[in-house]
Amino acid sequence: MVKRIVDLRSDTVTKPTETMRAAIADAEVGDDVLEHDPTAFQLESEMAKIMGKEAGLFVPSGTMANLISVLVHCECRGSEVILGHNSHIHIYENGGISTIGGVHPRTVHNNDDGTMDIDLIEAAIRDSKEEITFPITRLICLENTHCNHGGRCLSVEYTDRVGEVAKKHGLKLHIDGARIFNASVALGVPVDRLVQAADSVSVCLSKGLGAPVGSVIVGSNSFITKARRLRKTLGGGMRQVGILCAAALVALHENLPKLESDHKKARLLADGLDKIKGLRVDTSSVETNIIYIEIEEFSGTTAAKLCKNLEEYGILLMQTALSRLRVVLHHQISESDVQYALSCFQKAVNGVQNENGN
Amino acid sequence: MVKRIVDLRSDTVTKPTETMRAAIADAEVGDDVLEHDPTAFQLESEMAKIMGKEAGLFVPSGTMANLISVLVHCECRGSEVILGHNSHIHIYENGGISTIGGVHPRTVHNNDDGTMDIDLIEAAIRDSKEEITFPITRLICLENTHCNHGGRCLSVEYTDRVGEVAKKHGLKLHIDGARIFNASVALGVPVDRLVQAADSVSVCLSKGLGAPVGSVIVGSNSFITKARRLRKTLGGGMRQVGILCAAALVALHENLPKLESDHKKARLLADGLDKIKGLRVDTSSVETNIIYIEIEEFSGTTAAKLCKNLEEYGILLMQTALSRLRVVLHHQISESDVQYALSCFQKAVNGVQNENGN
Amino acid sequence: MVKRIVDLRSDTVTKPTETMRAAIADAEVGDDVLEHDPTAFQLESEMAKIMGKEAGLFVPSGTMANLISVLVHCECRGSEVILGHNSHIHIYENGGISTIGGVHPRTVHNNDDGTMDIDLIEAAIRDSKEEITFPITRLICLENTHCNHGGRCLSVEYTDRVGEVAKKHGLKLHIDGARIFNASVALGVPVDRLVQAADSVSVCLSKGLGAPVGSVIVGSNSFITKARRLRKTLGGGMRQVGILCAAALVALHENLPKLESDHKKARLLADGLDKIKGLRVDTSSVETNIIYIEIEEFSGTTAAKLCKNLEEYGILLMQTALSRLRVVLHHQISESDVQYALSCFQKAVNGVQNENGN
Amino acid sequence: MVKRIVDLRSDTVTKPTETMRAAIADAEVGDDVLEHDPTAFQLESEMAKIMGKEAGLFVPSGTMANLISVLVHCECRGSEVILGHNSHIHIYENGGISTIGGVHPRTVHNNDDGTMDIDLIEAAIRDSKEEITFPITRLICLENTHCNHGGRCLSVEYTDRVGEVAKKHGLKLHIDGARIFNASVALGVPVDRLVQAADSVSVCLSKGLGAPVGSVIVGSNSFITKARRLRKTLGGGMRQVGILCAAALVALHENLPKLESDHKKARLLADGLDKIKGLRVDTSSVETNIIYIEIEEFSGTTAAKLCKNLEEYGILLMQTALSRLRVVLHHQISESDVQYALSCFQKAVNGVQNENGN
Repeated sequence: MVKRIVDLRSDTVTKPTETMRAAIADAEVGDDVLEHDPTAFQLESEMAKIMGKEAGLFVPSGTMANLISVLVHCECRGSEVILGHNSHIHIYENGGISTIGGVHPRTVHNNDDGTMDIDLIEAAIRDSKEEITFPITRLICLENTHCNHGGRCLSVEYTDRVGEVAKKHGLKLHIDGARIFNASVALGVPVDRLVQAADSVSVCLSKGLGAPVGSVIVGSNSFITKARRLRKTLGGGMRQVGILCAAALVALHENLPKLESDHKKARLLADGLDKIKGLRVDTSSVETNIIYIEIEEFSGTTAAKLCKNLEEYGILLMQTALSRLRVVLHHQISESDVQYALSCFQKAVNGVQNENGN
Repeated sequence: MVKRIVDLRSDTVTKPTETMRAAIADAEVGDDVLEHDPTAFQLESEMAKIMGKEAGLFVPSGTMANLISVLVHCECRGSEVILGHNSHIHIYENGGISTIGGVHPRTVHNNDDGTMDIDLIEAAIRDSKEEITFPITRLICLENTHCNHGGRCLSVEYTDRVGEVAKKHGLKLHIDGARIFNASVALGVPVDRLVQAADSVSVCLSKGLGAPVGSVIVGSNSFITKARRLRKTLGGGMRQVGILCAAALVALHENLPKLESDHKKARLLADGLDKIKGLRVDTSSVETNIIYIEIEEFSGTTAAKLCKNLEEYGILLMQTALSRLRVVLHHQISESDVQYALSCFQKAVNGVQNENGN
Repeated sequence: MVKRIVDLRSDTVTKPTETMRAAIADAEVGDDVLEHDPTAFQLESEMAKIMGKEAGLFVPSGTMANLISVLVHCECRGSEVILGHNSHIHIYENGGISTIGGVHPRTVHNNDDGTMDIDLIEAAIRDSKEEITFPITRLICLENTHCNHGGRCLSVEYTDRVGEVAKKHGLKLHIDGARIFNASVALGVPVDRLVQAADSVSVCLSKGLGAPVGSVIVGSNSFITKARRLRKTLGGGMRQVGILCAAALVALHENLPKLESDHKKARLLADGLDKIKGLRVDTSSVETNIIYIEIEEFSGTTAAKLCKNLEEYGILLMQTALSRLRVVLHHQISESDVQYALSCFQKAVNGVQNENGN
Repeated sequence: MVKRIVDLRSDTVTKPTETMRAAIADAEVGDDVLEHDPTAFQLESEMAKIMGKEAGLFVPSGTMANLISVLVHCECRGSEVILGHNSHIHIYENGGISTIGGVHPRTVHNNDDGTMDIDLIEAAIRDSKEEITFPITRLICLENTHCNHGGRCLSVEYTDRVGEVAKKHGLKLHIDGARIFNASVALGVPVDRLVQAADSVSVCLSKGLGAPVGSVIVGSNSFITKARRLRKTLGGGMRQVGILCAAALVALHENLPKLESDHKKARLLADGLDKIKGLRVDTSSVETNIIYIEIEEFSGTTAAKLCKNLEEYGILLMQTALSRLRVVLHHQISESDVQYALSCFQKAVNGVQNENGN
């Protein structure tokens, strides 16, 4: 008998659906380096339209999407970018903007809700005319939803205010929107309105949307022209890439409407987990599809141990600190999976307590 | 009626075959960032074995394959690479090894056959102990077959000799083997023997092999471990990448045996073209699937004009200089296409001569 | 009549003394690129010995001293350095370690006394084996005395503990010791003992020591060999540099003993300033030659205005924030200058209050 | 008795004269980072005027002068520079424009006289609109006089023609004018006219002019503003730098008129050397102060051996290839030194021949 697996490590673990596989098999393709693959073109145009920007560019990963965006906005040597100290770009992308791109990161403290205080952002901006020993600030980066802060959403008001600060100082604004659709759905704000203030947005297709591979960058025509060239430099130019874009189009059409349900399942799971003695979830902060679970000290277990025990039940999750686990919901987790996961959590915690206890 | 199209611009223009599409639709996949996609793993292992190296890594493009290879071998600041003045890395990859990687290129003259004289290579090597004003040579790059030199092959003897020079000076040897299988077939030398002297090889799946997307880098385990990290930095880490690797495996199994026929068709076409008055092909240099056509001055036409005229007949090719066209054969060009192309060439040249003429 | 000028902007403003000028005029020199300038050699050897390291290297500035040190320790692409969020390297050196060197900075909060919490440092360290998406930590940087934190000193115990953390994780430790002699004197700890845990130290000759130009980097022989090459790359290799080193040797011999008196004058000035109504100095934090003055809101003036008013009296200082001024003592400020400065401060503040007031 | 030394290794070996030493001792100085050192300002202004450009910037070395110039012209990521395959920037400056600056070098063949064929330069230019896989050409570099080609001069006509090509394609032109005054004197063309077509020129003070340290970059005001910032980034910003600039001003005023005599001595020496059996000098190519000596095979000696033998006589020179020596004249070599050197050469060659021979 096949063991029941509930993979909650990330929303990147989804398998392509049958519709996606069929779309891939039928995809109309062309050489996207020599000319324009028609399916890639369709995806890029559609995404640009949804996001309210002039143009789009398909790239193999979210990391490349952010790397290209930052590097195009900071195309001159000596540039500085302002970004959250806990942002994905700063923590999980190999420091590529510096190590590959020579951009100097200046971090501003991320509050619990993923925001950075507006006045701290403004205080961090540095002007070339001020002081010859400063790098020159050229870009502010936001992340929405904020991965390291429980998938919490930046509001449209907040985003607009940061956009005004950027404009006032002649800076660009990039949004790492790997999960921007989750934010749009959770906030009930159309996504194009949510990113209106941004000069560029990176959107991930292989996270909540469930496509096998890829991200799209959107921005102005001139921005995308430069991005396309840099994509080639980095080695992200692919030939008959319609193969991937066909799946991404299905993801966009079929899975976007399912995000709301992912959030509902996340709240269900969060509420259940918080009721398990020994675990703690700040349920009020579960705004989208990510849950952080704190392992209480008195529980007698640790994140590592609990993670391992749950793996035996087929429940897969990710440890992010000594006493912290991360759970991510996605369209291939059913409500029944959530219930099953809850029962396994209960058993795993009980098991430990019995073991330690009696 | 659909116009007959014979696309000879490059071997990158091939469309995925039915078998590939079926394989893609059925591909077993996993999250290749979190763990290892099983189909990617199979492709990487198989390619490593074929090439006689310890390990392999799938990347989205040949450009990224070369970029990663050069950057891993030159991981220390202040490195210099010796490579052909006409090499693909130097001319067609945006100078990424410098502009993104900070590696200093030192070019050596490429002879007509794509080789660089061994003594010129050796003279170009610079040692850190010699002179404090020199960058430090760390790598030699060869290209086999040589794209800019008519797809000509480097022999195993030549490759071995360069390998010896590299070893003698403590350098690494990388082969840009985008079309290494064409060389292996044309030379009648097993590919693992042909690249035996190399520390790393990049192999393209979307050129002669006809896969939609991707290249594989092969090398030692420790090299590939570093390459995997750098692939993440550059944004080449993809999720359910088995989608692409399934097609690549079919390409490897089904199209590798067809390369010999591509070469035969190339010779056929070359011989025919050389007989057309006004065109000239150095048929003796057509060793694989690439042909360069010189437009004679007396022909009354130019490369640009001929290119455009042929496009009207559905014959697509690439202009590479004022009086030079490039033709590349691949598995989706039949012998009948070759005959058709020849007749169109004849007509196009005649047409011009008539037009100019009487 | 020449106006009395008391230049308190920085300890970099000192003019070469007569002894220095005489030494320069008599300096024995050679071509320090082709061979070794004898006076440079003497300075480098002497400084290395004083600092308890194997070798030294003269460079044109403190910025180059730090840049070279960080880049040599982080010679491999993909490196991360841990440093204070308020450190000179992070704030005042153009982000050169990233924009020129491609090193990724990871900042840790600087406490008021210039330290970073040891556990925060340790938490920031990232290992290549852990996670493929992390840059690799290779270096920790301390700054002693800490410029942006009032010239406060890091103790030998603290430095040793950071050294142990570095060693435990296989990292290097660099000390930006632009004013390390001030720390040594203030702490009463021999300078070689104070920097014992460090793999490299940059020492400034043109700050407290009063030489016209230059810094020295000290470290192991192999470190300095690499530093020398990188100095050439950056353009810091100079020919008959003995001209500058002769002055630096005088600075080292004659001005080092005067640092204690600079600190005494700083305390005198700080105490006096703190007594002026409207100004506030945290006198307990004045450990060396730097004073930060807060302008109280009720004073009726601002840092900018006070700065300008004092300039009319010939008192030069630097504004570092809206309500903050910086004063730096050095060997060309006498006790009488301090008294004069105090009286001018009093007059300037009074003047404003009169002007605003009655 | 002190051995007579005739140091012909380079024109960088000169010692500061008494006048220079006096000027240094008396130099008026200031903090050139905080404000502007008055002597540096005088030197920079004077040099800018002489060269016919708007502004100047003193830097510690010729390497930094070229590095800054190339990097300012190529301030955007993805830039390519066209320069001679034998140019000083490409061969002797650690590849810093790539390894530190990320600029991609594209070399064009240097003819014997140091020129590059105009049509080869033009053919190497690459436009961003042409092809997405190309780096973007932004700069052409010339070297006058050409160090690796015997100190030969580029004519004003040639320079103007390259300038026209640059302008036509929207590129900048930089002249590595380390020895531009030698060219000006030898050609009998005012130096401002000679560099009229250039957007920037680097001029070395410590070569023919005999100053102890430094170079000056000249260009437009906006170029120099950017150069000043980059100088700070690289660590070339120095404090009381008037110390060095005072010597440089003397060099400019006193030694510039002596260059003609250096050239005369070079021709004298070249003629004499060519008459020595076993040595060969292409006397017609000795246009300025550099001589390359070929050691004939029949001479029975080698460059290394001859170099060593001459050292015993106190004649110092540099070996640049197996059978090649380089000699550079400067203001501290007298005509009597030249005669003495010639006699030593004769003896050294004779000695070998006797030793080997009969």
